Amino acid sequence: MKGKFIVLEGLEGAGKTTAQQAIVNVLAEYGIKDLVFTREPGGTPLAEKLRHLIKHEVEEPVCDKAELLMLYAARIQLVENVIKPALLSGKWVIGDRHDLSSQAYQGGGRQLDQQLLTHLKQAILADFKPDLTLYLDIDPAIGLARAKTRGKLDRIEQQQLDFFQRTRNRYLQLVQQDPKALIINAEQPLEKVRDDIKQQIRHWIENEQLVSLA
Amino acid sequence: MKGKFIVLEGLEGAGKTTAQQAIVNVLAEYGIKDLVFTREPGGTPLAEKLRHLIKHEVEEPVCDKAELLMLYAARIQLVENVIKPALLSGKWVIGDRHDLSSQAYQGGGRQLDQQLLTHLKQAILADFKPDLTLYLDIDPAIGLARAKTRGKLDRIEQQQLDFFQRTRNRYLQLVQQDPKALIINAEQPLEKVRDDIKQQIRHWIENEQLVSLA
Repeated sequence: MKGKFIVLEGLEGAGKTTAQQAIVNVLAEYGIKDLVFTREPGGTPLAEKLRHLIKHEVEEPVCDKAELLMLYAARIQLVENVIKPALLSGKWVIGDRHDLSSQAYQGGGRQLDQQLLTHLKQAILADFKPDLTLYLDIDPAIGLARAKTRGKLDRIEQQQLDFFQRTRNRYLQLVQQDPKALIINAEQPLEKVRDDIKQQIRHWIENEQLVSLA
Repeated sequence: MKGKFIVLEGLEGAGKTTAQQAIVNVLAEYGIKDLVFTREPGGTPLAEKLRHLIKHEVEEPVCDKAELLMLYAARIQLVENVIKPALLSGKWVIGDRHDLSSQAYQGGGRQLDQQLLTHLKQAILADFKPDLTLYLDIDPAIGLARAKTRGKLDRIEQQQLDFFQRTRNRYLQLVQQDPKALIINAEQPLEKVRDDIKQQIRHWIENEQLVSLA
């Protein structure tokens, strides 16, 4: 049986790492232990090199369109060379970010042309998409304060607050339209966030009859 | 006065380097000496890093779509950070390859979806295009034999002959539709190719009344 692709989305500091652990724990309850973890941009040799260029290029200004194109180049490498083969072999894939990040950050934050974003998504990914997206919603001011405690911010994390406010608005707008996406209130205490995620994942697995309890 | 953007196009071994020198000589006749030379992919710090990934990635297979996206990322960096500023400051730019290469190699050679190519060109470059394109036409078998004498072939140059045949066909098809493109028969003896180029450039400059003879 084909594996499932679960994606975590959200602003910096929303708690994606904690959420990932909660998902792993719930999947283990159902006997799903053969997992592949991905992150975007990155996750393949070429995609990791692109990640570095996207986040840490300092020799010249990076055009918004170049950033978007590099993100999609990294994404298609990851999808074709890692995610699709893993799913086909029956493994489940847990992704730290996927296409929704580009729609939110580059579409909302950078305000790139919506038609370009829609067309790229369609032309590059066709009908490939996550089976479930968990969007961790948080006020950018709170998320950034958390992210800063982790160390130096990269080129994208250095944007101003209004950039992240636009990113959050686009996230919310798109998640609300997507029947395969769920919103988690990530401003709650960590323990409550974790419980919400576990409950949502259990509900989804049982609702979709994806596996029987091990 | 704004500078002009002249682009050299053609298969490997078509003689773009020789052609470049011929153009420089003719421009000098007209007193145009403040030139900028570009190559694609490449020509900016980030674009050169992308060039390396495009041509020499060996750790994993590169998807055709990722190749195309990296080419456009490199192109928009070059256009925005080098070519447009040079033209605005009155310099003339001589480009070793530009967008037509992607249309021919990735569209013709790799047979990528025509709609994707058309849309990317429009979305990324909008109405930016060369003032003149010189396409050096050569039978791929002849061109590749010449290119091989220059040393080790890169990832794209290692394609089979039918790839380059499709690339040439697409070049010819597009150049014939483009009023700002000229075809040079690059199978002729070098001296004749050089003379043809010089004559065409002189004709273009005088016809368009771009400069008066110095």
